[in-house]
Formats: sequence, C-alpha cells, structure tokens
Amino acid sequence: MDRTLDLTQDAARLTAQLVDFASPSGSEKELADAVEEALRALPHLTVERYGNNVVARTNLGRAERIILAGHIDTVPIADNVPSRLDEDGVTLWGCGTSDMKSGVAVQLRIAQTLTEPNRDLTFVFYDNEEVAAHLNGLGHVADAHPDWLEGDFAILLEGTEGLVEGGCQGTLRVILKVSGERAHSARAWMGRNAIHAASPILERLAAYEPRKPVVDGLEFHEGLNAVAIEGGLAKNVIPDACAVTVNFRYAPDRSMEEAERFVRDFFAGCPIDEFIVDDHTGGARPGLTHPAAAAFLAAVGGEARPKFGWTDVSRFSALGVPAVNYGPGNPIYAHKIDERVDTRLILEAEKVLASWLTAP
Amino acid sequence: MDRTLDLTQDAARLTAQLVDFASPSGSEKELADAVEEALRALPHLTVERYGNNVVARTNLGRAERIILAGHIDTVPIADNVPSRLDEDGVTLWGCGTSDMKSGVAVQLRIAQTLTEPNRDLTFVFYDNEEVAAHLNGLGHVADAHPDWLEGDFAILLEGTEGLVEGGCQGTLRVILKVSGERAHSARAWMGRNAIHAASPILERLAAYEPRKPVVDGLEFHEGLNAVAIEGGLAKNVIPDACAVTVNFRYAPDRSMEEAERFVRDFFAGCPIDEFIVDDHTGGARPGLTHPAAAAFLAAVGGEARPKFGWTDVSRFSALGVPAVNYGPGNPIYAHKIDERVDTRLILEAEKVLASWLTAP
Repeated sequence: MDRTLDLTQDAARLTAQLVDFASPSGSEKELADAVEEALRALPHLTVERYGNNVVARTNLGRAERIILAGHIDTVPIADNVPSRLDEDGVTLWGCGTSDMKSGVAVQLRIAQTLTEPNRDLTFVFYDNEEVAAHLNGLGHVADAHPDWLEGDFAILLEGTEGLVEGGCQGTLRVILKVSGERAHSARAWMGRNAIHAASPILERLAAYEPRKPVVDGLEFHEGLNAVAIEGGLAKNVIPDACAVTVNFRYAPDRSMEEAERFVRDFFAGCPIDEFIVDDHTGGARPGLTHPAAAAFLAAVGGEARPKFGWTDVSRFSALGVPAVNYGPGNPIYAHKIDERVDTRLILEAEKVLASWLTAP
Repeated sequence: MDRTLDLTQDAARLTAQLVDFASPSGSEKELADAVEEALRALPHLTVERYGNNVVARTNLGRAERIILAGHIDTVPIADNVPSRLDEDGVTLWGCGTSDMKSGVAVQLRIAQTLTEPNRDLTFVFYDNEEVAAHLNGLGHVADAHPDWLEGDFAILLEGTEGLVEGGCQGTLRVILKVSGERAHSARAWMGRNAIHAASPILERLAAYEPRKPVVDGLEFHEGLNAVAIEGGLAKNVIPDACAVTVNFRYAPDRSMEEAERFVRDFFAGCPIDEFIVDDHTGGARPGLTHPAAAAFLAAVGGEARPKFGWTDVSRFSALGVPAVNYGPGNPIYAHKIDERVDTRLILEAEKVLASWLTAP
C-alpha cells in the first residue's frame, strides 16, 4: 500500500487508507508521521507535533476558533485489517472504521479542502485514547501545550452515527470494605460473617432507582452498580472480610464532590469499615447553550442527545472549551471484531461540516 | 530445626516440633516422612504407608483393638510458624497447636512409650483433613486398605480441651449461582446485574436463626454461612454472574437428604440459576451407648458433650467403628491466626490415655 496519505480522495476512500495503517494504541507512530507529512504539504496550515500527537491550525484572524479532534489509535487488530469494502458498495469493514478513523478522515478532508473557512480551525490528532487515562495523548498535549487547544468550541469526531451528542457522565469507582471476625464454620457463632454483613449494601444497590436529570436540555441516565464482589478465605472459615466495588455513573449536573457525597450518603448506616475512592473522573455538561454550539447544532439540523459514556469531551470541558461528540462512526460496532461503518455517513459528515464552516 | 522427630521429649515439646514442620494441606510429605521414620524405629510396631498417610500397629493378640487417629495437615500458615512458647511457660502459640498437632504429639508419645498396652493399638496419621472431603487421607486409606482401620473403638484426637465429645455434625457445601446480563457500566440499564440479584441470598443468610436440637442427650448447634462470594468481570462491566458458596453445618438427627432439602427450601424463591452440591458429608450420632465408648468415658471420668464440627468420627462410624473425639487442643482457636494450646492439657491427655491403656 501507499504510505503517503492522499487527501484528495473522498472521505470514505480516505477512511479505508487510514484503516490500512494499523495503529493499535502504542503503535501510532507510522500513522502520525503520515498525518503530519500530509498536513505539512498544506500551505494554509501551521503544524505542530508532540510525541505522536499532531496539531494543525489556520491563522486567518477569524472571530471564532473551532477545534476538530480525533484519536488515531484503535483497539488491538483482530484479523480485521486491511479494510474491505462490502459488495453492497457502502459498508466498509475493518478495525477503526467506526472508532474512529472515519472521523479522522473527515478531519483531514476539512483540513485539505477548506483553505478559507469562516472560522479559524484547529485540527487535533492524538494517540492512546483506547488505553489508560494517563497515557491519553490529548491529556499530554493539554498539559504540555495548553495554548494549542485554545478555542471557542470543540467537536470530537467520535462515532455518533451523525448525531450530536452533548456532555458526558462522570464515573466514580469506590471499594466498600466490610469486616467481620474469622472463625471455623463449624462454630460460626464464635465469629462474625463479613459476607452476611455486606447484605445491606447489596440490598440498597438492588433497590436503587436511577436519576434521569435533564441537563441543558438533555436527559441523562445515572447508574449505581456493583462491578465486583469478593469475600471468603477457605471453604470452612467464616470470612472476616468482604469487598464490594461500586461504580457510580453520574449526570454532569453533579460536581465530583457532590457525586462522592451522594455515594457516601447512599450507603450511610451500612457497616462499611473502609470507603476507598479507587478512580474518579468528572462529567461534562452538554454546553449546548454556548452560541457556537447552538450554531453548529442548527447547521446539523438535528436534535442533540446525551452521551452516557465518558469521552474526551470532558477534557475540553475542563479546559473551558465547550465540546460535543459528532462523528460518522456507529458506536455499537466500536471494539468489535466485525467493526464496520456506513460510508454514506462519512460523506454526509464531511458535507455538513464543510457547509457550516463555509456558510457566508 | 531438627528434621528428625524426637519422640523421647514430652508431648508439649513434641507438639512444638510438629508445629515447626509447616504442613498446610497438600504439603504434608515432609512431616509424613518424619512420622514414618520415627515409628519405623520402634520395634513393637508394624508400619504401613499409603500416600502421605502412615498407619502403625501393635500385634499383641489382645481382645480389643483401639484406634488413635489424627490428621497431620493444618490450614494455611499466617505468619504463625514456627511455634512460640509464651512467657507464662504453658501457652504454646502457632498454626496447628490446637488443630491438631497437640493430638498428634499425644499419639506419637503413646506409640513410643506403651510397648505392651492392655489393648492392641492402631495409630493413624493422615493428610488433607482441612480441605475437600474427597482429598481426605483417612477416606483414601478406608477405600484402599479398610483392614488397616479395623478396630473396636476409635479415638480421634481432634481438640476437645480434654473432654469427650460424641458424634459430629454433618457438613454440606453448596454453590449458588446467580446470573445476569452483561453490559457496559455506562449503560447499566442495557444489562442485569448478577451481584445485585444475589442480594436476597445474603439477606436470608443474615436473618438465619440456628437450630439447637438435643440428640442422644447432647445439644448440637447448627450453622448456615456464606464462606465465599465472587462476582465481577471488569471494572466497567455489569457482571453477568455471581456465585455464593454456602456451608451448612447440621445436627446428626438430619439425614444427608434432609439437610440438602432444608437448604434448598431455605433459599426457595431466590433467583438461583444453578444449585451445585460441592461437598457433602453426613454427621454421626453420639453413639456413647456402645460398651467400648462407655468404658473410655468412665476412664476419663468426665461428661460427654456434643461435637459441633465435622470430624472424621463419622468416617469411623460409617466403617462400623464407634468413635469419639478426645484431644488436648482448644477448638475455639482452630483456624485462627492467634491459634494456641494450653500445654498442660497435652500432658494430661497423654497421662489419661497411657493410664487407661496400661491399667491391669
């Protein structure tokens, strides 16, 4: 295959070429090189590089600056590269087709074709989104070069099937440790069973009713779930310890402090000996009331819907840049072996963005 | 430490040496070797070995044969080996001090010192008592060499603090499997949480009230406990499986069938997808009305009390050999990190047995 990206082909064909650059997390260098090289060939852009992250910008002095961002890594290849166009002529199969090289192709096409957009544009291509948060390239750029990410509004081209998804929920994981007193199970009354003592925790979880608040016009859907439980020492011993790991996914109208307080209050009165915050990342409000976001939503012509999962939208949010998800991929195929994309959505996304960014 | 057992030291010191041979279930070989070697040095005994089980016998043609049996394994070490004699001079600390190397020390001392007992003696040392019933060395010997276990009366030297304990409770272990439906925890409502579904199982266990029936004049004490719980796939996945392992210790007035029926009925209505009988051994009625048992009880001069734990008394019972528990260990310390024994009880048990077995 040709290792030089051809940005003159349409976004669907370009997606296929991007998929053929296998780039699972940690192996993005070759693709980052190709993206950098292709962008440096465009005289209307200035190009920066940090690790395997590439940032390109127009500098037209427009009143507003829009960021188009996408990650260039994929989950591990599973015999699904190179890409393959289905005989139906519209379905493209392969690793990263939906998550999210179709979005990256749209970014690159906008970079190639809009030499004089009506707003200044910043294109961000970053690595390691599919792995642990501390490896995430967008986070690294935000730390090292926050000025590269300045803007009025950001669009993350993660797959949404062409809908606008606003905000994202926060996620808090806590470990609840319950203790008891060990004894031989033949004389259980000499001890205190920590698994039995955990019963009220499960009772409350089983009775939990999710809150579905409307935030900036979008209805979110919270969730409070045990994702692990562990207890027991030996088959004839009354266990003196039981640990329940609970994940709270919460709507972005709660702050991180409020979310933690909610969980503590929810389990108040349960015999918890240790309450350990294992992981916590805040949510992001949809921000659709921001003029730039509203203008984009009007241009797309659709309704926005809430994003339940955590995405890098919340990184922009933390930088003070309102952000939404909007991309051609279909999230239900993300991370699946039979990943695919409807190429008509890719062409449509390019058309929508180009039209909004060139309208007089 | 010296890897050769010194049977000429008193039973308390011998207990300390036995504890210093760490022998958690599955790792008894070194100790079995030492026991075999020490017994083979005694010309009045014939010695047999099967796996890590050692059986030694006198062959004096006496009218009665008494079996003295004990297991040589312990629960896992928990930083409580080697043994340590307290500064009070009588308390010996360490894994297996009460359960039941003090009993094994008494067996070995009787084997060493009684070259011409008034009854023929069979000494049985076996492995894997603290783990699943199918691994139990006494069971293996009973299957492969039932003639080695022939006798008129058996004393199992499990810890009873020097009292005679009759009968034993049965033990049934079941695994209750609860299923759900997997989903990403960001969209928990797409799945069904198996850990939450296990809540009624724990609720019932927490509310359980034990039965205490009187059987052949002795009051037993039942127990129903979760000894393990396990559930969870990944930190962001709603778990589709949860398993609760439950141990039922029941009085010997219930048959095995009745015990299993009780547990099934107890959890009736809980969302259990699989009810797996993982291990089951019946109890044994006290049997103190047998003449050999009565004679021993008279010699000890005490009252009998019920045995709560399952012991291998029930294996002898099944072979047609009446059996009781009588040993120096204190059962309340069994399986505890702070396991200990009162060494005065060890010396007393040796004295009582030697006196009964040498009386004219």
